[in-house]
Amino acid sequence: MKSNQITVEISDNRKEKPAFSSLQFGKTFTDHMFVMDYTEDQGWHHPRIVPYQPITLDPAATIFHYGQTVFEGLKAYLSENEEVFLFRPEENIKRLNRSCERLCIPQVDEEIALEALQKLVDIDREWIPNVEGMALYIRPFIISTEPNLDVTPSKSYTFMIILSPVGAFYKEGINPVKIAVEQEYVRAVRGGTGNAKTAGNYAGAMLAQKQSGKSGYSQVLWLDGKENKYIEEVGSMNVFFKINGEVVTPELSGSILEGITRKSVIELLKHWNVPVSERKISIDDIYDAYKNGQLEEAFGTGTAAVISPIGELFWKSEKLIINDGKTGELAKKIYDALTGIQTGKVEDPFGWRVTVQ
Amino acid sequence: MKSNQITVEISDNRKEKPAFSSLQFGKTFTDHMFVMDYTEDQGWHHPRIVPYQPITLDPAATIFHYGQTVFEGLKAYLSENEEVFLFRPEENIKRLNRSCERLCIPQVDEEIALEALQKLVDIDREWIPNVEGMALYIRPFIISTEPNLDVTPSKSYTFMIILSPVGAFYKEGINPVKIAVEQEYVRAVRGGTGNAKTAGNYAGAMLAQKQSGKSGYSQVLWLDGKENKYIEEVGSMNVFFKINGEVVTPELSGSILEGITRKSVIELLKHWNVPVSERKISIDDIYDAYKNGQLEEAFGTGTAAVISPIGELFWKSEKLIINDGKTGELAKKIYDALTGIQTGKVEDPFGWRVTVQ
Repeated sequence: MKSNQITVEISDNRKEKPAFSSLQFGKTFTDHMFVMDYTEDQGWHHPRIVPYQPITLDPAATIFHYGQTVFEGLKAYLSENEEVFLFRPEENIKRLNRSCERLCIPQVDEEIALEALQKLVDIDREWIPNVEGMALYIRPFIISTEPNLDVTPSKSYTFMIILSPVGAFYKEGINPVKIAVEQEYVRAVRGGTGNAKTAGNYAGAMLAQKQSGKSGYSQVLWLDGKENKYIEEVGSMNVFFKINGEVVTPELSGSILEGITRKSVIELLKHWNVPVSERKISIDDIYDAYKNGQLEEAFGTGTAAVISPIGELFWKSEKLIINDGKTGELAKKIYDALTGIQTGKVEDPFGWRVTVQ
Repeated sequence: MKSNQITVEISDNRKEKPAFSSLQFGKTFTDHMFVMDYTEDQGWHHPRIVPYQPITLDPAATIFHYGQTVFEGLKAYLSENEEVFLFRPEENIKRLNRSCERLCIPQVDEEIALEALQKLVDIDREWIPNVEGMALYIRPFIISTEPNLDVTPSKSYTFMIILSPVGAFYKEGINPVKIAVEQEYVRAVRGGTGNAKTAGNYAGAMLAQKQSGKSGYSQVLWLDGKENKYIEEVGSMNVFFKINGEVVTPELSGSILEGITRKSVIELLKHWNVPVSERKISIDDIYDAYKNGQLEEAFGTGTAAVISPIGELFWKSEKLIINDGKTGELAKKIYDALTGIQTGKVEDPFGWRVTVQ
């Protein structure tokens, strides 16, 4: 399939753009979307950009019953010169295909997917907020569509990309968040789907999140499902700690999402010659470092928030206040570097930035 | 809300009924479906039976991204006197509501849900196959519908019930199936969603199932996610073993589905004064019992298959042939008793059968 086969139908009924600065995350969508179908006979076919519109499915479509679905999240940024940049989009498409493998979904052609991303963002480029800290969130996703109540991989799928202008993921912005260590619920376990970006991981996480929210915590810190002691992720982000000058993050164990921001932070720290290591980290390690005065910083990393400093960790009825509850120096430096590269404000020695032509 | 508020719109375009005896599981649907909506303002409202028709949703509806959904499965049976029976439907609705709680979905009114089940089955009663071993499969399910990419419980939902005439769940029918003990993948772990009937559990299970299928096994036997040694379920069924005269099944650990057939089998065995116990069972216990000649029978239990005898267990490159690969005497007796009660052929001392009026 050649990428120039993507057909385009421009909407003749453009929506009015909202005041970007007042947007809530993920509730406003642009004028167009990308769609591509899969059937056993034809494979992936009919790639097209069409006006943003509802999906119509049989009530027996397997997505509604057995949740065979994967998704991605990335952003398009507007530079001061009105250029449009993506950040390592090929990494998202590769991860989408790894998720597909775990969920028994046929993989998509990387070239077509990247072309679709760029073409769609280009068509809706006026929706990219020209406001500091804002961006156009890009959501590629695949759903299973066959009407079939047998628990077996679907024979048909739809791949879509939708776009949403967004501000900061957390109401707090780059300000530190308060996190509760989760002791009852588990996000994922080795052998499960924790390293795939798939709906079930997020559905299962909502109850813990809701309960921690009631106690005033933004997110939970997930521990592993086997021993309930090793740190995995924070909310829907990867997590880093700075302990006595060294930056550590949980190793990819099979149950942790392979974050692209995570990977970029590690590469950035290595580039800066800051000691960084991926290893098993227990909650006791963190507690001990805190008690010894060596827990210097903690932060989450993810596409939505980029860097989210952690000002407080709640663990066994004790509040661990990190860096006086303030944004750490390193977290801020990483945030500035990443958002600088993403928006074209600083040099990109890594070749991470992709210009949408 | 009064149950007589369920409105009914009869289809004026009835489908032609297929030859029931040739049906595949879950691919054919009846003329009508039940629908009820939830919004924050109105709660659950507008219960209605309408012609079977597609669902139309925004592509940003959270069901497509974060999989907030629960479902149930039960059957309607036609007796020789053309009466229509349900089997313990109130247990399904209670479990639906327990699943809702885990998935942060607002619970439904049990009375309305039961009324809806009965009314819908009654309207489409001509779709219940009058063929031995066949039934009308009933699929209640709830999906989250709010267009919102923020990972947070949806503010709107749709509850639906659809119906599908079905034959045996396994091609093999009541004949024994071959099962492979799964050593790489994990279905669920304590603290996760394993005891809720929700899409993500099933999506995550497909890869192991697909791989075991390639080796000629119908389903996998799941081990626990923590120690990878305790038996949990078989495929999408609960599992029982008869060892030296005693029937054992894994205890409800939090990661195992609380099967209604499981519960009924336990109650039936107690009624018969057959020793039965719910406890932790390791795969080594089963292997030892096999080697000692004490593993007399093994079978899965679930709504779809009722009882599914296990003729072979594949474990660490060894084939454990159970009861000479034949259906066990007890499995057959339980199958006959349950299907007898379900179809009205035998007395129902438990009050499990509900007549659709």
